[in-house]
Amino acid sequence: MPEIPKKQKAMVIEKTGGPVEFKDIDVQQPGPDEVLVNIKYSGVCHTDLHAVNGDWPLPTKLPLVGGHEGAGVVVARGELVKDVEIGDHAGVKWINGSCLACDFCQQSDEPLCSKALLSGYTVDGTFQQYCIAKAAHVARLHKDIPLDGVAPVLCAGITVYKGLKESGAKPGQTVAIVGAGGGLGSLAQQYAKAMGLRCIAIDAGEDKRKMCLEQLGSYAFVDFSTSQNVAKDVQAATEDGLGPHAVILVATAEKPFQQAAEYVRPRGTVVFIGLPAGAYVRAPVFESVVKMITIRASYVGNRKDTSEALDFYRRGLIKAPFKTVGLSELQSVYDMMHKGQIAGRYVLDTSK
Amino acid sequence: MPEIPKKQKAMVIEKTGGPVEFKDIDVQQPGPDEVLVNIKYSGVCHTDLHAVNGDWPLPTKLPLVGGHEGAGVVVARGELVKDVEIGDHAGVKWINGSCLACDFCQQSDEPLCSKALLSGYTVDGTFQQYCIAKAAHVARLHKDIPLDGVAPVLCAGITVYKGLKESGAKPGQTVAIVGAGGGLGSLAQQYAKAMGLRCIAIDAGEDKRKMCLEQLGSYAFVDFSTSQNVAKDVQAATEDGLGPHAVILVATAEKPFQQAAEYVRPRGTVVFIGLPAGAYVRAPVFESVVKMITIRASYVGNRKDTSEALDFYRRGLIKAPFKTVGLSELQSVYDMMHKGQIAGRYVLDTSK
Amino acid sequence: MPEIPKKQKAMVIEKTGGPVEFKDIDVQQPGPDEVLVNIKYSGVCHTDLHAVNGDWPLPTKLPLVGGHEGAGVVVARGELVKDVEIGDHAGVKWINGSCLACDFCQQSDEPLCSKALLSGYTVDGTFQQYCIAKAAHVARLHKDIPLDGVAPVLCAGITVYKGLKESGAKPGQTVAIVGAGGGLGSLAQQYAKAMGLRCIAIDAGEDKRKMCLEQLGSYAFVDFSTSQNVAKDVQAATEDGLGPHAVILVATAEKPFQQAAEYVRPRGTVVFIGLPAGAYVRAPVFESVVKMITIRASYVGNRKDTSEALDFYRRGLIKAPFKTVGLSELQSVYDMMHKGQIAGRYVLDTSK
Amino acid sequence: MPEIPKKQKAMVIEKTGGPVEFKDIDVQQPGPDEVLVNIKYSGVCHTDLHAVNGDWPLPTKLPLVGGHEGAGVVVARGELVKDVEIGDHAGVKWINGSCLACDFCQQSDEPLCSKALLSGYTVDGTFQQYCIAKAAHVARLHKDIPLDGVAPVLCAGITVYKGLKESGAKPGQTVAIVGAGGGLGSLAQQYAKAMGLRCIAIDAGEDKRKMCLEQLGSYAFVDFSTSQNVAKDVQAATEDGLGPHAVILVATAEKPFQQAAEYVRPRGTVVFIGLPAGAYVRAPVFESVVKMITIRASYVGNRKDTSEALDFYRRGLIKAPFKTVGLSELQSVYDMMHKGQIAGRYVLDTSK
Repeated sequence: MPEIPKKQKAMVIEKTGGPVEFKDIDVQQPGPDEVLVNIKYSGVCHTDLHAVNGDWPLPTKLPLVGGHEGAGVVVARGELVKDVEIGDHAGVKWINGSCLACDFCQQSDEPLCSKALLSGYTVDGTFQQYCIAKAAHVARLHKDIPLDGVAPVLCAGITVYKGLKESGAKPGQTVAIVGAGGGLGSLAQQYAKAMGLRCIAIDAGEDKRKMCLEQLGSYAFVDFSTSQNVAKDVQAATEDGLGPHAVILVATAEKPFQQAAEYVRPRGTVVFIGLPAGAYVRAPVFESVVKMITIRASYVGNRKDTSEALDFYRRGLIKAPFKTVGLSELQSVYDMMHKGQIAGRYVLDTSK
Repeated sequence: MPEIPKKQKAMVIEKTGGPVEFKDIDVQQPGPDEVLVNIKYSGVCHTDLHAVNGDWPLPTKLPLVGGHEGAGVVVARGELVKDVEIGDHAGVKWINGSCLACDFCQQSDEPLCSKALLSGYTVDGTFQQYCIAKAAHVARLHKDIPLDGVAPVLCAGITVYKGLKESGAKPGQTVAIVGAGGGLGSLAQQYAKAMGLRCIAIDAGEDKRKMCLEQLGSYAFVDFSTSQNVAKDVQAATEDGLGPHAVILVATAEKPFQQAAEYVRPRGTVVFIGLPAGAYVRAPVFESVVKMITIRASYVGNRKDTSEALDFYRRGLIKAPFKTVGLSELQSVYDMMHKGQIAGRYVLDTSK
Repeated sequence: MPEIPKKQKAMVIEKTGGPVEFKDIDVQQPGPDEVLVNIKYSGVCHTDLHAVNGDWPLPTKLPLVGGHEGAGVVVARGELVKDVEIGDHAGVKWINGSCLACDFCQQSDEPLCSKALLSGYTVDGTFQQYCIAKAAHVARLHKDIPLDGVAPVLCAGITVYKGLKESGAKPGQTVAIVGAGGGLGSLAQQYAKAMGLRCIAIDAGEDKRKMCLEQLGSYAFVDFSTSQNVAKDVQAATEDGLGPHAVILVATAEKPFQQAAEYVRPRGTVVFIGLPAGAYVRAPVFESVVKMITIRASYVGNRKDTSEALDFYRRGLIKAPFKTVGLSELQSVYDMMHKGQIAGRYVLDTSK
Repeated sequence: MPEIPKKQKAMVIEKTGGPVEFKDIDVQQPGPDEVLVNIKYSGVCHTDLHAVNGDWPLPTKLPLVGGHEGAGVVVARGELVKDVEIGDHAGVKWINGSCLACDFCQQSDEPLCSKALLSGYTVDGTFQQYCIAKAAHVARLHKDIPLDGVAPVLCAGITVYKGLKESGAKPGQTVAIVGAGGGLGSLAQQYAKAMGLRCIAIDAGEDKRKMCLEQLGSYAFVDFSTSQNVAKDVQAATEDGLGPHAVILVATAEKPFQQAAEYVRPRGTVVFIGLPAGAYVRAPVFESVVKMITIRASYVGNRKDTSEALDFYRRGLIKAPFKTVGLSELQSVYDMMHKGQIAGRYVLDTSK
């Protein structure tokens, strides 16, 4: 049995707006249906910044320990927990728990549960050494999965995988990824490839072109910064010129969305992911109707999506590059995010 | 064998903008894969007005015989036609023909065929006594179906039935119909009921409330003209207050669409139908994503939808009230449409 | 707060083979995730007889309180239970609980959970006055649902509803019910009708013909005891002679199954329900392949199916005739079952 | 314009049972909706042997030119044909034509059309230099596809691809291929891999093990000739020991089928392909029901499946090894088939 300390290190915000402070706080005890996870590594996501800034139409808990991409080792469990053992590796993700009994939980849509607990938002998250999570919701991690590398997969990876599933695209079909060169886009291309899909990457610049075509598995790249007509170029990149079967927008803004509605194949699906504050999507009625397009908003994955997405990662099909810094350096990661200086994902080592 | 005259009566426009004139024109001969249908009755649809006015981003044939809701008797057929007999009853609808070989035809999406022939738009339609149509595309009509009554079903009925199918709503689930008191809305409620769905009607006024609740099978009515909060009222009309599983907008405009995106149940689908010129739909990203909603544009039915929708009609489950006037009176029907004076559907008797 | 006695009446078997005895036993306390339901009425199902007889390849708990169609009132709950209130009406069904975390529970297939608790089989069931069940699994019963009438729906109703869903038949399509005149068959026809399906009843005798056509909503009846050729007659009862889109076999035996595989429409589905000991189904390869038929085994419903099936019942669309006798008379009900003398369902009143 | 001779070489049988004779016969003219294809290469399939032997419950045309895996060049077309050009490369497959208007054709199930023309069976096939086919049904072949190599894909490849689609297995899931080392099985493994599926190969012998694991992309091999318990070994080869999500039986016989029903994962699907004369499948009711398994019979692909399967081939993801001999040597190929001496596929060069 592992020894569990009474006190631990954590990054805490006392009030909306921050600052985030490195502190000693109490280690909690798991309830009957919970586990206590000794977080080894935690990814940092844009959502954490929204939690600090309070710019979403949903209040956070305060004081708050943020973070929802945590990977670690189970060190304690409640009396009802039977399928997670002490010593098991587990991931704590955005959906920390849900009621498991409402209409949405009954149909495997736990992210839609009105009682869902959100890690690092409505309950304390993974920017601490010991984190509580509902046993039924922690991600089961095979021991051959590296705990640092998997951290970003626990949110970003699962989210893009879910978006690809929601797109309805089938093996052999073509999917365009808008924002292909960023963190979510890089993962999306790799998942798409692993799922037998053919990828058109859309982003800007020679570096990203190279990366998408040579490393991430896309067969075509459209540079929106130099293209005279993005819609035309994307359609031209498909075998029959009729456009991709699906489009994944990893960073939804109005213009790229409208372009997507234009170039997506008739009967195709435009999926949008991500939660920018205050944004809208807009589509023309006539053109949408005669093309019978579907527009679908995709949130985070459920538990099944999680286990599937992790399995692709475990099989070595997904590379998610990251940099590791100490937990105490979280504020400097936020500063870089603010300035848009982050390429790839930052992972915090909770021992530092 | 029926005798086929050389000349016939038709309503013709020579140039975009009209007028529509009652004329004697030649009767055509069917090609090898076509049939000649002696149209007995033809419905009049708003689309016919768009064809006259030329306000859609798609040019019509000129001179043009409009109409795409024609029911009649097959009087001649080409050499390749084997499954339609002389004397069979048949319907000529918006999709007059398609290539039957392209990617979309191969997946039963004939309305998306880029070579689709559109009755009364890119080929001559049903405002004449003898109309040509591709044999593979004419609707097969059982002889116990009245040829006048079925005319409006051939476009309006099939279109709302398709919209309901596209919504993905399942028996026992709830669907809201926006514009429930109009021609399309009335049909939509009846189809919904026949499909085992539960209906919330949304429209304005006591007359429509009464009609929807007492005749058309809805179990709730929300009057958007008097409601303080349409979204709240629609959700309150559902068992658990979480909103309807699907929303069908039969006349898409921006405000009702945004309301629909607001009150539709999480994981629900908003379907829009109809082809207003120049309209847009718009949805907020954050709220759409956390509710995982789907927005789907539905066009006309394919041949299978057609035969299914007709079967519900034949079984007496759908009433489509109409008034009959002579073919020569088409202009006066257009005039009433222009003024918004039409309640129910007009059907033209081609013998007058 | 209701007063909960220490002792209660129950029907208990001490060893496989019976007898079943009317006894005073202890009332149990619910665990943290459980509720205690004061069972008012419990239906009796053939499965209960299998539990007594021990003729299934799965051992029961011993001593055993049988029963898995119980309806009553929640009188106590564990500390983790938040969405069921004391005083709520609840149903205890075959699946008493499941892990809610395994691969099958994650995809809403709780009946496939390898840790599923089976009421009246691996845990004590509803032939007692106070029954324990996992809170996440009890059926939520609106208070306008009669507790006696709903009892048989909790197993038989849900099971046939699930079978109909598994068949993939869509509103307007035709489904044949084999064994239409029995308890399961009667419910199946009513559910089918409520779901917008068209029903062909297959059974024997004039009484059943009348009941199926006049009360249960079928439009055709094939009498297998007098038909020269069941397959031909069933196909002839469909509009185009090609056979029903689906077949539901509520009592699977080899001959009716083979007939079903013969008359089901190409691309159709044959669903079999029920758990006869030692039976097999058998289909010819050539004919199955060129017709592309699907054969699907359907078990009991999950929680979502349960709530849907109950909603159809609550809306008055399903009548499930039953006779009520005292709990202490269970053995005589078993005796009638043994002799095949039961028409309709027996419901036990636990107060007697 | 290519010059079309009046006479051509063909392999003809005059009566059931054979022999097949190398003859000069007339070249036919295409009808209005047909094309004439100058067959360059034609694969030989077991079905051709059934056509000669007449052991299927469906009579052939006589005299008969067999063959249904033909690849060549379009040299003439009927007046209605607009989307196939003279000089295009085209494949003639089992479904030579269908009505394109019946209930099944309307839902893209052309192989189920009761008027379907079967190449080399009910109409003359590809064992001749100039073959007639319905234009809407010929497979469109990109010019970078080799006409000899693609021949076996036109039947075997499409058939296994269809089977994999019918299995419902999704990217990342596991599928077992029974008969993995044969012609169909080899293709099935490659298609499965290209579709993002994980493959367990089931067959006998070290050579096949090596081929499946090293060349065809399977990650596990179960040798049914040496395994003590095939069901147990297949389940053990899956991550969680619960068995593969789907099983594809490329050569249906009773024992392997029963094993498949045993080891397939709960909620999984057993697909059987192939048309052995007189064979049956058989499954136990109890075990099937509590596992909720699906058994599905899969025939040949439709036109969409065809174009998808060909696209995987064109992209280089599928290798279909073959040996080429002259058309005149067909009888010797049949002789080898009779003796079970064929490894891989034989392709006939019609110029010899």
